[in-house]
Amino acid sequence: MNVALITIGDEVLIGQIINRNAAWIADAVTRIGCTVVEHCVVADDSSQLTQTIDRLRASCDVLLLTGGLGPTHDDITKHVLAEYFGDDLVESAEWMEHLRLWMAMRGREITLRNAGQALTPSTAQLLTNPIGTAPGLLFDRDDIVIVAMPGVPDEMKGIMRDHVLPLLTSQMLEGGKAVTQYHTLLTTGIAESTLADLIGEPDTFLNGSSLAFLPNYQGVRLRIGVTADSQQERDRERMRVASILRERAGRFIFGHDDQTLASVVGHHLVERGETVSVAESCTGGLLGAAFTDVPGSSAWFRGGVITYSNMAKEQELGVSSSDLLRVGAVSEEVALQMATGVQAKYVTTYGVGITGIAGPDGGTPGKPVGTVWISVAGPVKNTTVRFQFGTDRRINRERSVGAALGMLWKIVR
Amino acid sequence: MNVALITIGDEVLIGQIINRNAAWIADAVTRIGCTVVEHCVVADDSSQLTQTIDRLRASCDVLLLTGGLGPTHDDITKHVLAEYFGDDLVESAEWMEHLRLWMAMRGREITLRNAGQALTPSTAQLLTNPIGTAPGLLFDRDDIVIVAMPGVPDEMKGIMRDHVLPLLTSQMLEGGKAVTQYHTLLTTGIAESTLADLIGEPDTFLNGSSLAFLPNYQGVRLRIGVTADSQQERDRERMRVASILRERAGRFIFGHDDQTLASVVGHHLVERGETVSVAESCTGGLLGAAFTDVPGSSAWFRGGVITYSNMAKEQELGVSSSDLLRVGAVSEEVALQMATGVQAKYVTTYGVGITGIAGPDGGTPGKPVGTVWISVAGPVKNTTVRFQFGTDRRINRERSVGAALGMLWKIVR
Repeated sequence: MNVALITIGDEVLIGQIINRNAAWIADAVTRIGCTVVEHCVVADDSSQLTQTIDRLRASCDVLLLTGGLGPTHDDITKHVLAEYFGDDLVESAEWMEHLRLWMAMRGREITLRNAGQALTPSTAQLLTNPIGTAPGLLFDRDDIVIVAMPGVPDEMKGIMRDHVLPLLTSQMLEGGKAVTQYHTLLTTGIAESTLADLIGEPDTFLNGSSLAFLPNYQGVRLRIGVTADSQQERDRERMRVASILRERAGRFIFGHDDQTLASVVGHHLVERGETVSVAESCTGGLLGAAFTDVPGSSAWFRGGVITYSNMAKEQELGVSSSDLLRVGAVSEEVALQMATGVQAKYVTTYGVGITGIAGPDGGTPGKPVGTVWISVAGPVKNTTVRFQFGTDRRINRERSVGAALGMLWKIVR
Repeated sequence: MNVALITIGDEVLIGQIINRNAAWIADAVTRIGCTVVEHCVVADDSSQLTQTIDRLRASCDVLLLTGGLGPTHDDITKHVLAEYFGDDLVESAEWMEHLRLWMAMRGREITLRNAGQALTPSTAQLLTNPIGTAPGLLFDRDDIVIVAMPGVPDEMKGIMRDHVLPLLTSQMLEGGKAVTQYHTLLTTGIAESTLADLIGEPDTFLNGSSLAFLPNYQGVRLRIGVTADSQQERDRERMRVASILRERAGRFIFGHDDQTLASVVGHHLVERGETVSVAESCTGGLLGAAFTDVPGSSAWFRGGVITYSNMAKEQELGVSSSDLLRVGAVSEEVALQMATGVQAKYVTTYGVGITGIAGPDGGTPGKPVGTVWISVAGPVKNTTVRFQFGTDRRINRERSVGAALGMLWKIVR
């Protein structure tokens, strides 16, 4: 089943908003076996949207639209779809009732502007959206299914989960065609080209499956794509390819699919009955945020300290003031003392210390921007490593988090 | 000058990677006055890429491609472009020298796989990329400029800054056509529809300019689009519209363009000679990360504590153990004590405390998932507010950060 995504909105087109919705939807429909053939971002412009729908209708079974369903003058989606299908906009009594309740729960009166949200194309099926004022709109025709959803992520996700994913799943089961499914092995601590050499020429073992190398800040992901008629065949082929990859590069593989380094580290800590705490300088809370992004992390993550000044490093973590003077805050000594300091403070098995120069300023010839020291204090021994990243502040902070998680993973794996 | 973005890569298409590159490029070219007409994400598939280039060539002056320039078998971009323009792939001696140096600096030998990166289409101009192994490729034809760049964000940004943006700027100055520029006013603490009512019908004052309402976790942004031949005319119209918006909704406007709530709060703190520290539970470091994302934040952000357990709240912040027992960790009392505790610990003007239930588990009828208490302790008085967000863990954490920043902004503005 071929799916295309259309994102409507100048704010995405001009780069004011990152298109996270497209990634979420693409991932969700790929998981159930659909093939995403294109994402397209278009302006709040009726003729461009109409042309895009026409063009993609020729090659797709399903078009998923997000955006342009709000209450303001630049929201055009439902008007374009009504015209496209020759529909009138009619008031839905049911949706008006939803709007009244929605407003009442927030102690607000229904305004004319909000009431307009109950006007919907006459042949569209309304998809409930308990947390917003716009319903999803479903047009189910012989050759095409078109669904329009709000651009607000929470609302889009609710409509996808409650309506769209179940509908597509049932239509695919009826169809019984060959589908492609993806499975990903996650590596850390190895460069893309080194990993490619370790694995060797993919065509010698792929047999029609696909393999992609996908680098990000936490490592390189190996994505296996398998196409077959039945789930059983797909599972067998997937396991065959995965076992070859594990044989050749297994010591760098920390997990699979939507696991994260933080979630895998957390899983190992739970199994070992161990705990961790963090002391962050240049990452300023990002490592703590990565750990606490994992549901249930309170079982193994105890807490942390963000020491953005030398005084805080001394007072909160017991870092030596003479070392701060002698070798500076970005040093092996200070990273180690931050790690052991927070380990002792929170009485955890491991303490992680990060200190570095994220940029754009603060670099020196001996310690250029991108210099980061990371230390993991453990029950038996401590490990401290110097990293040299690039010049982009945000990326240096993210790579520091990835490197710290990779170091901890090697210890607890 | 009409620009379209083409992102090449299955990893983006199937949603494994969020298309941040497209947002960055779109923002950069919009700022210099280009009009972005479409983003398109396509597969690692030669015929789809060729068709997309053909289609967009008809309506665009510039196509900016990212992705598919790496050293592995699924990287197709340069092969497709060579075929599209009837070029051979030839070895660039200059790029081979770059590769040798690049490898030598990393203590590595040049491999056959890496050497392949020096093979480039014969009519392409190579754009230097000091931090990667693939050069940018520029095809400058009479009717179209096509630039292919690597998908690695750092490398793409370097090529855009060093080559593409200067080239487009000079071509636009030669052209002298009417251009559209955007300007954004940022609001916090007001809902989209309330803001729209406050501002009134845009058509009554826009005179051909455009206005869009763009909600995110930190508030609603008002984006003004102005089209005119000269910079002077654009500036005058932009200021006219902005002054109307400020007159009607000024008390909710905290900044403009790419400012963030954190950067604006930091700016006010510097002006007031004041400082802040944070005590985070459910956000686990995200508020500290937001503050330290601002370059130079060490001038006003002192540090923080991530207290993910009750014990840490007691020991590190002096939260009352009887209150923790009596009203629980997610309560007005505990949020306030976290705020005053961290304010005293780091000796800062303000202390911010956040405690809540991010989900997916941990909710109760009286405190459902999404319940968050936020307190700001100040020199004169303390403010503590209960928020009720949704059910998505990530979004609840981001909205908590936005709400805390909004509370602090109202105090220091």
